[in-house]
Amino acid sequence: MKKIGILTSGGDCQGLNAAIRGVAKALYEEFGSDVEIYGIRDGYRGLIEGDFHRMHPEDFSGILTLGGTILGTSRQPFKLMKSAAEGSETTKLEKMKDTYSKMGLDCLVVLGGNGTHKTANLLSEEGLNVVSLPKTIDNDLWGTDMTFGFQSAVDIATHVLDCIHTTATSHGRVFIVEIMGHKVGWLTLHAGIAGGADVILIPEIPYDITKIVQTLEQRNQAGKGFSILAVAEGAISKAESKMSKKEFKAARAAMAEPSISYRLAKEIGELTGQEIRVTVPGHFQRGGSPCAYDRVLSTRFGAAAARLIQEKKYGNMVALQNNRIVAVPLSEVAGKLKAVPTDCDTIQSARDIGVSFGD
Amino acid sequence: MKKIGILTSGGDCQGLNAAIRGVAKALYEEFGSDVEIYGIRDGYRGLIEGDFHRMHPEDFSGILTLGGTILGTSRQPFKLMKSAAEGSETTKLEKMKDTYSKMGLDCLVVLGGNGTHKTANLLSEEGLNVVSLPKTIDNDLWGTDMTFGFQSAVDIATHVLDCIHTTATSHGRVFIVEIMGHKVGWLTLHAGIAGGADVILIPEIPYDITKIVQTLEQRNQAGKGFSILAVAEGAISKAESKMSKKEFKAARAAMAEPSISYRLAKEIGELTGQEIRVTVPGHFQRGGSPCAYDRVLSTRFGAAAARLIQEKKYGNMVALQNNRIVAVPLSEVAGKLKAVPTDCDTIQSARDIGVSFGD
Amino acid sequence: MKKIGILTSGGDCQGLNAAIRGVAKALYEEFGSDVEIYGIRDGYRGLIEGDFHRMHPEDFSGILTLGGTILGTSRQPFKLMKSAAEGSETTKLEKMKDTYSKMGLDCLVVLGGNGTHKTANLLSEEGLNVVSLPKTIDNDLWGTDMTFGFQSAVDIATHVLDCIHTTATSHGRVFIVEIMGHKVGWLTLHAGIAGGADVILIPEIPYDITKIVQTLEQRNQAGKGFSILAVAEGAISKAESKMSKKEFKAARAAMAEPSISYRLAKEIGELTGQEIRVTVPGHFQRGGSPCAYDRVLSTRFGAAAARLIQEKKYGNMVALQNNRIVAVPLSEVAGKLKAVPTDCDTIQSARDIGVSFGD
Amino acid sequence: MKKIGILTSGGDCQGLNAAIRGVAKALYEEFGSDVEIYGIRDGYRGLIEGDFHRMHPEDFSGILTLGGTILGTSRQPFKLMKSAAEGSETTKLEKMKDTYSKMGLDCLVVLGGNGTHKTANLLSEEGLNVVSLPKTIDNDLWGTDMTFGFQSAVDIATHVLDCIHTTATSHGRVFIVEIMGHKVGWLTLHAGIAGGADVILIPEIPYDITKIVQTLEQRNQAGKGFSILAVAEGAISKAESKMSKKEFKAARAAMAEPSISYRLAKEIGELTGQEIRVTVPGHFQRGGSPCAYDRVLSTRFGAAAARLIQEKKYGNMVALQNNRIVAVPLSEVAGKLKAVPTDCDTIQSARDIGVSFGD
Repeated sequence: MKKIGILTSGGDCQGLNAAIRGVAKALYEEFGSDVEIYGIRDGYRGLIEGDFHRMHPEDFSGILTLGGTILGTSRQPFKLMKSAAEGSETTKLEKMKDTYSKMGLDCLVVLGGNGTHKTANLLSEEGLNVVSLPKTIDNDLWGTDMTFGFQSAVDIATHVLDCIHTTATSHGRVFIVEIMGHKVGWLTLHAGIAGGADVILIPEIPYDITKIVQTLEQRNQAGKGFSILAVAEGAISKAESKMSKKEFKAARAAMAEPSISYRLAKEIGELTGQEIRVTVPGHFQRGGSPCAYDRVLSTRFGAAAARLIQEKKYGNMVALQNNRIVAVPLSEVAGKLKAVPTDCDTIQSARDIGVSFGD
Repeated sequence: MKKIGILTSGGDCQGLNAAIRGVAKALYEEFGSDVEIYGIRDGYRGLIEGDFHRMHPEDFSGILTLGGTILGTSRQPFKLMKSAAEGSETTKLEKMKDTYSKMGLDCLVVLGGNGTHKTANLLSEEGLNVVSLPKTIDNDLWGTDMTFGFQSAVDIATHVLDCIHTTATSHGRVFIVEIMGHKVGWLTLHAGIAGGADVILIPEIPYDITKIVQTLEQRNQAGKGFSILAVAEGAISKAESKMSKKEFKAARAAMAEPSISYRLAKEIGELTGQEIRVTVPGHFQRGGSPCAYDRVLSTRFGAAAARLIQEKKYGNMVALQNNRIVAVPLSEVAGKLKAVPTDCDTIQSARDIGVSFGD
Repeated sequence: MKKIGILTSGGDCQGLNAAIRGVAKALYEEFGSDVEIYGIRDGYRGLIEGDFHRMHPEDFSGILTLGGTILGTSRQPFKLMKSAAEGSETTKLEKMKDTYSKMGLDCLVVLGGNGTHKTANLLSEEGLNVVSLPKTIDNDLWGTDMTFGFQSAVDIATHVLDCIHTTATSHGRVFIVEIMGHKVGWLTLHAGIAGGADVILIPEIPYDITKIVQTLEQRNQAGKGFSILAVAEGAISKAESKMSKKEFKAARAAMAEPSISYRLAKEIGELTGQEIRVTVPGHFQRGGSPCAYDRVLSTRFGAAAARLIQEKKYGNMVALQNNRIVAVPLSEVAGKLKAVPTDCDTIQSARDIGVSFGD
Repeated sequence: MKKIGILTSGGDCQGLNAAIRGVAKALYEEFGSDVEIYGIRDGYRGLIEGDFHRMHPEDFSGILTLGGTILGTSRQPFKLMKSAAEGSETTKLEKMKDTYSKMGLDCLVVLGGNGTHKTANLLSEEGLNVVSLPKTIDNDLWGTDMTFGFQSAVDIATHVLDCIHTTATSHGRVFIVEIMGHKVGWLTLHAGIAGGADVILIPEIPYDITKIVQTLEQRNQAGKGFSILAVAEGAISKAESKMSKKEFKAARAAMAEPSISYRLAKEIGELTGQEIRVTVPGHFQRGGSPCAYDRVLSTRFGAAAARLIQEKKYGNMVALQNNRIVAVPLSEVAGKLKAVPTDCDTIQSARDIGVSFGD
């Protein structure tokens, strides 16, 4: 009898249920009644606290299109529960190992992003059998060309930009759409191009406010009274990019506006005399039914994870590399970030058609 | 030869182009080559400044599905341009009459919301032939059961709520979605019900923060760890509802948060100890292609406006009353607001299924 | 203790689950633990065979957005099961009464269309307490201005027309889109207008093929190389409209093509020398998540049904009349059909902007 | 002065306008007023007949989201116009060369699929400077991992499957959804997985009707009363796969049903006693606004084509290989077909989760 535990951890995204379904269906097809699948509630919290339940084939039926995660999720345990009262990091690690061993698991399947994979690697180093799947709307996981959730979030952010476009042109206004992504700009880059943004600001390319204003003025002179800026949550100015981490944190803490978009709106407004509108779709970008692309990717990742379990190739994350599904050691993934290469073809193409990156 | 001018004024919304197309196609069908249609740029600004252009049948082709307005729009002239330098109200009125008379118009077709209709009525009182169409995502125009734009905005706000739902349930979080509507709650009410919101706050029903918190706690006790609040931009507390207009303005001016949703998030957060997330879809709600409902309504309104012109029934707004298209005198429309009746069946039904209005 | 049974019958449509949820939530809010709700499987089949199950509040959670019906559905029992072996009509009626009485129901809530309401009325006449809700994408139920499902189906059919539009214009082709509706043309009329169809054929207005060809030729001469026909499944020619019912059935039985659209394509093709493409979205039109409009309507209908139960006003269908929710006696609804009035404003408006109805 | 001609040929698809915009914007950015762009009407027809027009920057504005092609398109010239009266193949080739040379083009940019690329290669061999972009919803162009249009079509077909799902489950019915693709199964495979189809039939894997029926019966026995088959237009039975081309053509010509789906419905119906419903979304699948993925891809391809022109690297198709944009010689592309490898991971994953390919 194979006993498999599954958990989803970190911010939710589209495709989690599709991936869970993929893992489960492939396991049931492979092992039939020789496998038991256990759902662990709310990510690592459930592993720490022993909160899990036996699941059955019907639990995985009809969830392909469902947003969110049927298993619940929570933030990283080491970040959220630091107090001695709740248990130190070591204690929590011990508790997770305890639960794993009490459950008698053959493998723990983990679906998550960067934080999740750090913990997954730690568990693997501690001797647990772990197989993981790369989920995040940020597409910033090292080792895979693509994460599920990303393309669905691009669709939503693009839809927002499309709608803003019609109102921007009708009024001749300047709009900022703030797109998710604190550390990397994949989502903003792709949605920005797909949504026809005139300016795209991403963390990887610090901006110069005067360059942005210049672009807006050139558009005005060309008779285009409106402009749309796709701005990543993590966009930074050139000045900020030269600060130490400490200085930067202090600067942002002192910032009066709730986010970079509002600050940009104020600055551009002062420099151009125009009123700049801000739209913050926020968590909307990570919700709802996964797009077809993500459903196929999630299903492939899920089936691949089941194959790794069948072959006992533990300690790996399933990944997409050059259109092929591969296994990447957790130790190679953990702690790394896949930022947008500033010389990539996608950025080059955007520049080629006249998009400004504010640099 | 009939000469007809068309302008769109105030905030844009879905269905403007569909309505423009309806007017134009019906005029061309009725009068053939005996009608000339002129597009007036950017609402009343174009009428004041004499900025217009002759249009042709092909200009109205393929715009049924197009968001925004091909004529451009601008805010109310009397509000935006008050300085003596730019021209006093009287002067601007004279300029509009001048342009109308220089153009030799038989009728001016005006598409707009409440502000627009005040001016339309003024122009009508000054002797101009005016026919108007009710557009606004707010559905707050007196005299019509429905305005175009409303249902499309409901669709978008509902989609946002749907997506927030999946992330809210996965994380067990409380979310506030801020929905457009400073003065009336139609949009928030309908999207709130359609999106399954647990709490709906609208300007017509002042809220009591303790009642809201109570609802959230009851949900927690019932094992529902998440809650979604659909909050109109114009939501007000019971305390605020008792203030004088002056006091209220002062209170809001002193408010640290950018909008009521952020203030609510802070207050609820403090009372419950939970972190409350805020999503502000903003102008996204008024952009993009009109939904099927709005396209049909816009087309009917457009054709009805052409009929009024053909019958020389000037000084009227086309309207929907009990599923029938009627003409309502501009004088009856101007200056009134259609708020949500707090005892209406829609609110009652929402209460019946357990939705809290925070009262 | 109140005992309430619910069933959905006839072709499924969007909004059934939203309505079921509305009924149930309102009953639980009103009666708390003093109500028991029973789901009857697959429409009247479940009532005949005694196939039902106790449901609980959590069963009605999260179904607002879900397409189809969680209760299952089946065609009318009197139509489908005529053989003596299966039971005559009388026997089945007795079986339904038996189940109702064995279940000890206070009221049976029925969601369905025209066929369903005939049976509902029969049951009511036999002394059962029945309350019904009008569902159908056809909007052909007598006594209500609107049924839920209709607007969602309009959205889908309009989307199909939108997409066909771009390919039709690119290729300069003539397309027929076959839209659901065997007896009435509401869906085709609304989707046709919303999707910018050039020709709309509905059962209420028999067509003349030469008139259709004339419209296509006029468009060609005006330089519009493409045309789109929105054709109801139940469209009929003028010649057919003069046939006796028997003659018509024979004529259609002898028809080589699988549906009227294919016949029209052939006929128009022969008369114009152009190749005509046919698209048949079929059951696609009745599936998927209900649109916001239908969710609000379903919720209102659901809450209204619960109010009727609370007030013991049995023998009624909840309905929308002039924007108000009313109760209409089942005896008035049963056996009637709400066809599109050929002189209604919507048809007039379509004609006004140049749409041909082939007459 | 650079003179560039652009044409779109073959069946239209989503992303054509986005790609045209990409080419044009990148050319204007690169060459400014030193480039003239000419639109050639309706594909090669316009090149043969000298039907072209000078275009300007504003012509390429606002078309990113637009379905279809602003240039019009037509089927392959060599296929459509074979009569001596119209001109033999050689004559038409000469006419195309004539137009090219009269226009004084530096390069002809061609957007199309397999047929289009054969002609493009021919023109290139005749000494014309040609650069091409791979468009098709079929994704069957050799030399590129992905064509634009494909992902948008997957989205639409998946949406159809999603909606059919809710009606299929409600009624316990078997549905066939016929998906575009006469020669290859990429679209059916991806939409089938994304839409949760139980059976996927593609041209690359001939089916055995008894295997399909077996799958349906197993599902019935497992209590799943409904099943969904995603069937490519070009699906063939095992018996048919062993026929000579001539025999196959004769067999299909003798087929009573309008398409393979209807034949399958009849056959399965006879074998199972169940009524099988067929949905044929048809050209709907290639219309409407491109999805975000296709917009990004189209933009990248467009910018890459402009780079090839700038570098005078003629005779190439831009392509995506392992996430990188490359140039592939037309001679390598022409006449080849990229079928789905039957041992690819996507098919394997589908099998892993229990999808039947009818083999």
